[in-house]
Amino acid sequence: MPVNFTPPPPEALFPVAGIRLGLAEAGIRKLDRRDLTLLALDPGCTVAGVFTQNRFCAAPVHLCRSHLDSGSEIRALVINTGIANAGTGESGLQAAQKTCVAIGELFGVAANQVLPFSTGVILEPLPVDRLIAGLPRCAADLAANHWHAAAHGIMTTDTVAKAASRRIQINGRTVTITGISKGAGMIKPNMATMLGFVATDAGIAEPLLRQLVREVADASFNCITVDGDTSTNDSFIVIATGQSGAQFSDAAAPGYAALREALTGLALELAQAIVRDGEGATKFITIAVNGGRNREECKRVGYAIGHSPLVKTAFFASDPNLGRILAAIGYADIDALDVDNVRVWLGSTGEEVLVAEQGARAASYREEAGAHIMQAAEITIRVDLGRGQASGTVYSCDFSYDYVKINADYRS
Amino acid sequence: MPVNFTPPPPEALFPVAGIRLGLAEAGIRKLDRRDLTLLALDPGCTVAGVFTQNRFCAAPVHLCRSHLDSGSEIRALVINTGIANAGTGESGLQAAQKTCVAIGELFGVAANQVLPFSTGVILEPLPVDRLIAGLPRCAADLAANHWHAAAHGIMTTDTVAKAASRRIQINGRTVTITGISKGAGMIKPNMATMLGFVATDAGIAEPLLRQLVREVADASFNCITVDGDTSTNDSFIVIATGQSGAQFSDAAAPGYAALREALTGLALELAQAIVRDGEGATKFITIAVNGGRNREECKRVGYAIGHSPLVKTAFFASDPNLGRILAAIGYADIDALDVDNVRVWLGSTGEEVLVAEQGARAASYREEAGAHIMQAAEITIRVDLGRGQASGTVYSCDFSYDYVKINADYRS
Repeated sequence: MPVNFTPPPPEALFPVAGIRLGLAEAGIRKLDRRDLTLLALDPGCTVAGVFTQNRFCAAPVHLCRSHLDSGSEIRALVINTGIANAGTGESGLQAAQKTCVAIGELFGVAANQVLPFSTGVILEPLPVDRLIAGLPRCAADLAANHWHAAAHGIMTTDTVAKAASRRIQINGRTVTITGISKGAGMIKPNMATMLGFVATDAGIAEPLLRQLVREVADASFNCITVDGDTSTNDSFIVIATGQSGAQFSDAAAPGYAALREALTGLALELAQAIVRDGEGATKFITIAVNGGRNREECKRVGYAIGHSPLVKTAFFASDPNLGRILAAIGYADIDALDVDNVRVWLGSTGEEVLVAEQGARAASYREEAGAHIMQAAEITIRVDLGRGQASGTVYSCDFSYDYVKINADYRS
Repeated sequence: MPVNFTPPPPEALFPVAGIRLGLAEAGIRKLDRRDLTLLALDPGCTVAGVFTQNRFCAAPVHLCRSHLDSGSEIRALVINTGIANAGTGESGLQAAQKTCVAIGELFGVAANQVLPFSTGVILEPLPVDRLIAGLPRCAADLAANHWHAAAHGIMTTDTVAKAASRRIQINGRTVTITGISKGAGMIKPNMATMLGFVATDAGIAEPLLRQLVREVADASFNCITVDGDTSTNDSFIVIATGQSGAQFSDAAAPGYAALREALTGLALELAQAIVRDGEGATKFITIAVNGGRNREECKRVGYAIGHSPLVKTAFFASDPNLGRILAAIGYADIDALDVDNVRVWLGSTGEEVLVAEQGARAASYREEAGAHIMQAAEITIRVDLGRGQASGTVYSCDFSYDYVKINADYRS
């Protein structure tokens, strides 16, 4: 059960003009599962993406980077769940390439106009023949209103499908943004999350879109963690179809700031949904760090707290064993940190208490107040490093028996 | 239950001439617990230590550093369990200082001839009056054969007392080395472990001892992890009493290499005991990385694997979901790593299988072979990075329900 995230119903996900989606059961790893998702893009779309920094990055990630770099017009995306096609070497690359060729033939486009994505178990071969056999059924299923089905199609250990959609007015036109994401474990994105796809019918010129996708990822998927494990398959993609008529080619254009804000907000919602559905999560923890010399050190402190198994188990137990937070700040490797200037607060909706200052427990702190806040499902740890003006926020979750259960059982 | 570690019986721990130990119930945090341990050193000992790099380091760590740096002859060590005296600010420093003053008065020495150590809960004040009240009872209990009691006295969430002892012949003299350690959670030492004390009746000149303590820590306590949380109180101390008559003042002296090897071996045994007794541990995992450009990058890969919650839960489940190891290698941030040159083996006593090579699962690998090895309680992951001659080893354990249980319950 995710923490305060209710998946939107199908009708809440607005179609994005220029994009159709189709699914099929391909039997990649399990039977009776629509495990293959195809996105067909009209001509004229721009597409940009950011990908995992994991050195063992998956075969499809290699092809995505290469196809986007080639400058070819992207016309299709394909996503399979069940097998990650990572740690699969040369034969994995061939399998991903064969997939792109098959889709190219289906749509009458070149293989490098296709972006492939895989998610699931690492180190096992992709059953590419079964995947390719499923593609015509995906094509037959293509429809503009299949975002909800696609959000389900890309799940692995997720307990709920993650999707979000909004419409905004820009320069007198209605612009739609719809996105989906997946992920619950192996989550500490270092460029993007497991898989995230956001589409808009605004038109965004390619250089601007490349910049935008980095900015959006940095403010959303690059701020989350479940277990600190950076995946081999992280990919975050933004598609701009241009079919709303709203068109942007530089960041100073009127209305662009509003579009960027809406896109960022939607991506953050999708990224937070991954944490809310983090494996075994019972609490959603926002770690807001300010007073740093730069954003990077604020996020380093945020991740040190957000990754600490000791902090995470204390939150699971609703135990205000808050010295563990200080210990995590202390080992975040912040150069010349003066702990006497660090202040730490604990809060939930409508209440906040100062926990620590001057290197020690705050004189005003009462265990009962901390214990009361720890009961909440949404908790904010606020840290002031007291050495600068920069800030950074990280979203994390607690660590429960179910995390162990899920990851001791996964694959079986 | 620790993995393959049986605490030695009292008679297996040889006294070290020049050191007496005494314990008392001081009621630091719990009743009916000998929670205060005092070590009295004869004149003429040399003492050196390494300490945590955590910025929120505990008050006693500050005093230990200062007293060792002052060059004063150390005559006593005091260790309390229950409260870490970390995150306690100025009043914590005063409490540690008062403790040293009280011991100085008891023994007729200066306060800076005393080294204080604390372990337990962070952010709570040390009940220094109860501690000081217990000191005379410790002094009355002093005896050379109380190492076993001391190993028990310093425990927190440890399930067994950790101690080791050996006698070696050096230059025709019998030299004794005896040590104790504690720790089970918040274990990723960055200079030393929670608490480790090793004593020898060899004489070692202070500059040489300072170098030795770093070398020994680097080859033992700095190679272990349970949960990646670097403690606020890590301290590792070597005491050389000189009373065996064997005396060393430079590293080239005859017999010194043998002494260093014996000390390192004993420290490694104590460090491994912490991992074997890691909170909730059911498996002891050795991660041996070679073929690196330098030791640092080998250890970085070892720690990435050793910290990964996904790797650790797979080992708990005895599930050879070994792609998770590749993912961890991939995110260890090794510059320009060519994954095609990386090879990974899985082994236990008497058997080893090649799991991955050329960026993929090895053609010879069979799931049954991996599954069989995963049943063992002692498992080695061997990684060849294929890019140099350096190596480094990290010791870790698995991640079980009991880790969550212990850390959700601790304090309560």
